[in-house]
Amino acid sequence: MTKVVVCGALGRMGTIIGRLVTESPDLELVGGVDLREGSFYGVPVAEAEKIGEFLDEVRPDVLIDFTVASASVGNIKAAAARGVALVVGTTGFSPEQREEIRSAIEGNVPAVISSNFSVGVNIFWKLIREAARLLRDGYDVEVTEAHHRYKKDAPSGTAKTILEVLDEELGPRPHVYGREGMKERENEIGVHVVRGGDIVGDHSVLFAGNYETIELSHRAYDRAVFASGAVRAAAWADGQAPGIYSMDDVLGL
Amino acid sequence: MTKVVVCGALGRMGTIIGRLVTESPDLELVGGVDLREGSFYGVPVAEAEKIGEFLDEVRPDVLIDFTVASASVGNIKAAAARGVALVVGTTGFSPEQREEIRSAIEGNVPAVISSNFSVGVNIFWKLIREAARLLRDGYDVEVTEAHHRYKKDAPSGTAKTILEVLDEELGPRPHVYGREGMKERENEIGVHVVRGGDIVGDHSVLFAGNYETIELSHRAYDRAVFASGAVRAAAWADGQAPGIYSMDDVLGL
Amino acid sequence: MTKVVVCGALGRMGTIIGRLVTESPDLELVGGVDLREGSFYGVPVAEAEKIGEFLDEVRPDVLIDFTVASASVGNIKAAAARGVALVVGTTGFSPEQREEIRSAIEGNVPAVISSNFSVGVNIFWKLIREAARLLRDGYDVEVTEAHHRYKKDAPSGTAKTILEVLDEELGPRPHVYGREGMKERENEIGVHVVRGGDIVGDHSVLFAGNYETIELSHRAYDRAVFASGAVRAAAWADGQAPGIYSMDDVLGL
Amino acid sequence: MTKVVVCGALGRMGTIIGRLVTESPDLELVGGVDLREGSFYGVPVAEAEKIGEFLDEVRPDVLIDFTVASASVGNIKAAAARGVALVVGTTGFSPEQREEIRSAIEGNVPAVISSNFSVGVNIFWKLIREAARLLRDGYDVEVTEAHHRYKKDAPSGTAKTILEVLDEELGPRPHVYGREGMKERENEIGVHVVRGGDIVGDHSVLFAGNYETIELSHRAYDRAVFASGAVRAAAWADGQAPGIYSMDDVLGL
Repeated sequence: MTKVVVCGALGRMGTIIGRLVTESPDLELVGGVDLREGSFYGVPVAEAEKIGEFLDEVRPDVLIDFTVASASVGNIKAAAARGVALVVGTTGFSPEQREEIRSAIEGNVPAVISSNFSVGVNIFWKLIREAARLLRDGYDVEVTEAHHRYKKDAPSGTAKTILEVLDEELGPRPHVYGREGMKERENEIGVHVVRGGDIVGDHSVLFAGNYETIELSHRAYDRAVFASGAVRAAAWADGQAPGIYSMDDVLGL
Repeated sequence: MTKVVVCGALGRMGTIIGRLVTESPDLELVGGVDLREGSFYGVPVAEAEKIGEFLDEVRPDVLIDFTVASASVGNIKAAAARGVALVVGTTGFSPEQREEIRSAIEGNVPAVISSNFSVGVNIFWKLIREAARLLRDGYDVEVTEAHHRYKKDAPSGTAKTILEVLDEELGPRPHVYGREGMKERENEIGVHVVRGGDIVGDHSVLFAGNYETIELSHRAYDRAVFASGAVRAAAWADGQAPGIYSMDDVLGL
Repeated sequence: MTKVVVCGALGRMGTIIGRLVTESPDLELVGGVDLREGSFYGVPVAEAEKIGEFLDEVRPDVLIDFTVASASVGNIKAAAARGVALVVGTTGFSPEQREEIRSAIEGNVPAVISSNFSVGVNIFWKLIREAARLLRDGYDVEVTEAHHRYKKDAPSGTAKTILEVLDEELGPRPHVYGREGMKERENEIGVHVVRGGDIVGDHSVLFAGNYETIELSHRAYDRAVFASGAVRAAAWADGQAPGIYSMDDVLGL
Repeated sequence: MTKVVVCGALGRMGTIIGRLVTESPDLELVGGVDLREGSFYGVPVAEAEKIGEFLDEVRPDVLIDFTVASASVGNIKAAAARGVALVVGTTGFSPEQREEIRSAIEGNVPAVISSNFSVGVNIFWKLIREAARLLRDGYDVEVTEAHHRYKKDAPSGTAKTILEVLDEELGPRPHVYGREGMKERENEIGVHVVRGGDIVGDHSVLFAGNYETIELSHRAYDRAVFASGAVRAAAWADGQAPGIYSMDDVLGL
């Protein structure tokens, strides 16, 4: 049994992840971490400030972190220092934070890091790469994403990964948000961030060419789709060689 | 037979309008106006600078203007001063230009002014008004429009009219373009301007509420849909009492 | 406090409705009914065969029924005979069953009956009616709905109500499903039933005219949206005069 | 200069193809063939019954055929017998007709045969193949296409090719059209044929899995997109070795 601690245990994603861990035959939920002390699913939730002591006490095999960038860096360091494998779904890291994370992990523990743990989104990124490769010439590209009204970052981490994939395949192009009062389109990628209601997470990439358009889109209906991928990654990570992995590695894509 | 002059005769819209006028049993194409002299469909195209003399010469009943704001004001004044009825599809006027146009027209000639002459778009605006009225509480609103890569203004005149309709029904809300790095959504209307390929003209309004969304969308497949509405307005305008009319009046909506 | 019994208590919708009833300050969950005996949210679930005795025992003010047509008729009769108000979300009744239900209810109890209790869908039907009225001439109409792979009826009750609204506004037209090997389109309404994955419930109506289309669409992200409307209807129904009501009455649309 | 004859010269597609041939620097329009004699773009249009004599007279290098299956077989045989290369966009052939065509062509002339000559659609097919390969397990598949109200076949040739691609990647599954009164979904592919207005040609493939969907869609805005691919194929076909080619060969995909 792989022992799991969940950071952000009392938040929206943490609650779902905790439940899925308890339901998994291969995983055992041994604790949570959040801003305040408490409990979830019958196990203790420690205060984030005391994460080191808590990990020493419950000795998990894997730590799953869906929090915010500032908190996540500390959680990752605490786990890596103790040989605890990592699954990180937090987004919005600065380049410096990314570097800090990388040096904490490399040579020490296996870590699966992704802006989106859904199987479908990981395949969706692959299809976008293939589409960009085939439609490189003569097609204008526009990226649109939609999420619920409470989402704090724009665009989403998933959309940022889409933009990275496009940049890799098309060469870097300027990213233009929304467009207001603009003149003619040039070689940019247009980015559009829709926010409203309870939308779980939609992403689409439009390739618009001569008298025809091709569009690839992904829609999530339930946050469980992200959580179940993270839980799958936790089971996979336990026992891997140290290093940074993507969901492609977990899924064998 | 209603005699028609088309301003912007050699442009994309002017070319289609000219053709439709020649095909109409009730209208007679007597001339065009554009930046340079020339001819189209067998009638002369005069230079815009000499529009006054040209109108005195060919004596049209109606002038159709799909040009740019700066040129259009002069065309409208020249026509109104000579008692020539107007169909104006030009968009992007400043408040001052709107006032100039209004005072040139009122009491002098009938003028049909619209940001979109398609029958469907005019009905679409009505449906948006009804939807906004019914969904006023508890729904976030987002407006998206898409056009070809060469369109010069953003958002489109049609989208601006959508925003006016929403403001009238919902009370004024801030308009936010694209969203980048933003915090949580507030009471704004999100506006998204997609540009690419040859997209003729798509518009959609999303109402996102508790666990459900309602979307209204309009798509044009051919610029002829705008031109044919303008030609219909020209036939209707000839003989009306002086004043400013909308396509609602022409269509009897 | 309005006392509520939920039929289909152990099913997908019943489980959500039961939870929302317990969370409502105005309602009290006093029991459930299902194929097998059991309990939910701390109250007893009676066997459907013994619904009469159970209602005599727990004496609810309102019975909420989301079951299947064959079971629902018996539940409705049992409630109506005991003066228990009704909220019925079951679909797929035959004309004979509808008649049986009507005669059980009229003059006896208030009953809110709807194929869809979401606020958004009820407004969506209104917008479809308005669109059909305005787009009656020159537009072809196509209805598409999508649901999860386990849905048993096709098309959905919500889509059937859409078709009724269209028939009322457009005059009856044939309904054609899917189209295979067909010749040219005539005056029919095309109906398309998509089934796959966990799609909660999408509906759209396309009006396709000369070089332009208008589409109205509704998407549900969570079954809670149907359940919360039913719970709202239950609170409303208690104390109304006998008769059959729609969600329009509940919502004051 | 490659000399071209267009079959179906006076039809919707033939008219556009003829124009594009006259505009191409590498091609020369030398004649057309249709049900009745006539002329187009200044060259003679022969009666289909006399196609053999006509080909002997104008001696084209390539014959482009966008007609109907019954007529097309004769046109293809007449061209192949005279060593005239072929570009065939006609759809709806029976298996017997396909065999007849194959034996007329093989060893005699090069022939590019496709159900859709647009560059985008050919890339779209590739993306569908890749998506089907990656989403084979756990995703339900639904195909929807939309065309104008006058289209005579259902589903479109392009949709049939989509279904062939899916069958090749997923193994054969039943195809179910529209769904009416059905029970639960099984392993079938749902097919939905929308017809209305002037829709030029939309195709989409939906993959619906656990709490998420991926959709790939293609939209054509102008029939010129099909015609220009056919003209490109004509320039390519002249001089190739005998055999049957696809647009993949022309495009070097």
